[in-house]
Amino acid sequence: MKKLEEYVMSIPDFPEEGVIFRDVTSVLQNADGLQLAIDEIQKRLEGLEFDVIAGTESRGFIFGMPVAYNLHKPFVLVRKKGKLPRETVSMEYDLEYGSAVIEMHKDAVQPGQKVVLIDDLIATGGTIEAAAKMVEMLGGEVVKIVFLMELAGLKGREKLAKYDVDSVICYEGK
Amino acid sequence: MKKLEEYVMSIPDFPEEGVIFRDVTSVLQNADGLQLAIDEIQKRLEGLEFDVIAGTESRGFIFGMPVAYNLHKPFVLVRKKGKLPRETVSMEYDLEYGSAVIEMHKDAVQPGQKVVLIDDLIATGGTIEAAAKMVEMLGGEVVKIVFLMELAGLKGREKLAKYDVDSVICYEGK
Repeated sequence: MKKLEEYVMSIPDFPEEGVIFRDVTSVLQNADGLQLAIDEIQKRLEGLEFDVIAGTESRGFIFGMPVAYNLHKPFVLVRKKGKLPRETVSMEYDLEYGSAVIEMHKDAVQPGQKVVLIDDLIATGGTIEAAAKMVEMLGGEVVKIVFLMELAGLKGREKLAKYDVDSVICYEGK
Repeated sequence: MKKLEEYVMSIPDFPEEGVIFRDVTSVLQNADGLQLAIDEIQKRLEGLEFDVIAGTESRGFIFGMPVAYNLHKPFVLVRKKGKLPRETVSMEYDLEYGSAVIEMHKDAVQPGQKVVLIDDLIATGGTIEAAAKMVEMLGGEVVKIVFLMELAGLKGREKLAKYDVDSVICYEGK
């Protein structure tokens, strides 16, 4: 059986020179690759008790939703500013140049709920850290964060040191 | 058992005055609602032979991915311009004011493949029509389009008259 790594195409110099882009669309375009990606993420949650899965726009939706369906959990959208129709909390975080704001609905997480965050990739970890802080603002507890891929050279885990973080594929570089 | 309609919150005057926004996040925030939404979409594909599911950014990802996982199909991302790392085809379509461009990877659909499109909502149908045309540019055949919700008053189906279109919930208005 093919390993998950073998489904990931690596695109040099995208979106800019010097960056190797790890392409998840090549995983999803293959039914076996897609199945394996979801199964491997789900394995990291075996035996864990939790209430809610949250994912960030838009690749967190891709990997979070099938797991939420399979485990019969609610799914919460973490979206860019202005896209959620009801009352929200928001969090600003730094980008390489400038900053960005993400939001969640205020009623998306109830006080005391245990929340799992799922995303495709951890690079510097800024977006997921902001999402985790929003969960905590609402009184929730982040019990686990699972990434399909990790770029270890960008040291995103340092930012998430207080959380239980796991990744399916770990690349040494950036 | 609660009906799917009962999980959909309707938000008046979002994103602008006079529009009633049908909020899918309220469906997803409930584990039973989420399960029911995916199951109802999947029912519309029973007995259908097809090769690929495609979904448009970003709510098409939410509803398409669990179905792709469950039916062991590949999932193809239809994204806004500039977000896909490999060679793409693109299609421009009209918005209320101005236009937008969406893209697919050239290798996402092979000639002769039967493609199902899944999205959360059909309003005027412009985005899905553009996605369907791209599938056809690549030699694929659109064998079915399934929406979770339809705003019948916007007559999106007229634009999609040549396709087999189904929706789970149909609202009479706009």
